[in-house]
Amino acid sequence: MPHINLPEGIPGIASGFAYRPETAKPMRELAHVLLFQTGDPDSLTSGERELIATYVSSRNDCYFCQTSHGAAAAHHLDGNEDLVQHVKRDFLNAPISAKLKALLAIAGAVQKGGKQVTAELVADAREQGASDLEIHDTVLIAAAFCMYNRYVDGLATWQPHDSGMYRKMGEQLATIGYAP
Amino acid sequence: MPHINLPEGIPGIASGFAYRPETAKPMRELAHVLLFQTGDPDSLTSGERELIATYVSSRNDCYFCQTSHGAAAAHHLDGNEDLVQHVKRDFLNAPISAKLKALLAIAGAVQKGGKQVTAELVADAREQGASDLEIHDTVLIAAAFCMYNRYVDGLATWQPHDSGMYRKMGEQLATIGYAP
Repeated sequence: MPHINLPEGIPGIASGFAYRPETAKPMRELAHVLLFQTGDPDSLTSGERELIATYVSSRNDCYFCQTSHGAAAAHHLDGNEDLVQHVKRDFLNAPISAKLKALLAIAGAVQKGGKQVTAELVADAREQGASDLEIHDTVLIAAAFCMYNRYVDGLATWQPHDSGMYRKMGEQLATIGYAP
Repeated sequence: MPHINLPEGIPGIASGFAYRPETAKPMRELAHVLLFQTGDPDSLTSGERELIATYVSSRNDCYFCQTSHGAAAAHHLDGNEDLVQHVKRDFLNAPISAKLKALLAIAGAVQKGGKQVTAELVADAREQGASDLEIHDTVLIAAAFCMYNRYVDGLATWQPHDSGMYRKMGEQLATIGYAP
């Protein structure tokens, strides 16, 4: 049961958004820029960005976020749900680029704490072809999901276990985005 | 030295904001609603909200955020810098309300992880007079500073140690707010 009187029948973060539209607006805008309308076609794809969000959410043990963003990532990646699971379980051996592996290592450091990001991790990402903007966005996606995850679980939101619902949600997020 | 090529001479989070205005806008808006233009005069004061932000930032060991928001809190609290230090060090024995102590306990739980917020912590806050909105905003302030802190330190931003600069910054944040 949620810790506060959230509107019923609305899953996960959407119930917090419905409860407090004033904070929902910038939180949705931030996700939209970071994951969907990223402003630079040469930068990380939405699929790669959603994988970073999913990985951090799994590290934070947030069921709603890792499942909904995992579904969005899979939709971007031609429905490849196995790849999403592989990245969560063991990204170093997943069939993704060396650049994305280096960025996921940075995201994993951010999840533990900002000071865990070392010059070595950043140098490694740059060596694999990551731009400053990609490193910036990786740090901020990881940091932002440390917020979203804590918001969702800190309010004890309702998080149904219904894979069909999450698949549909993932399709919406991957096609419409997050704009308020 | 920052991990990426941030504009020089701009301290802390402001350098990230200058580097990426598209993400700065919603991040500033969120802080403005949570800390300054809170939309409910009967809810937590800006001073109390800045104390929560400062406490979480100190738990996350973020020098820039705990010092700038600590200065904003002190400005709201008639310049009482000792009180800010006391809250960071040992809030249970600080001269603040029992309600704020219960909310700081919730914020401390969120800093560790969303699932650390227990029904008991929430019941205690409610017993001390906290409303659902105050509990919501406490969870979200704490969650949001887990983002801001990681952004500031994850990019290794420049964080000068100059108490006069932070005092001036605190005054600005406490009087103008965070709006983009």
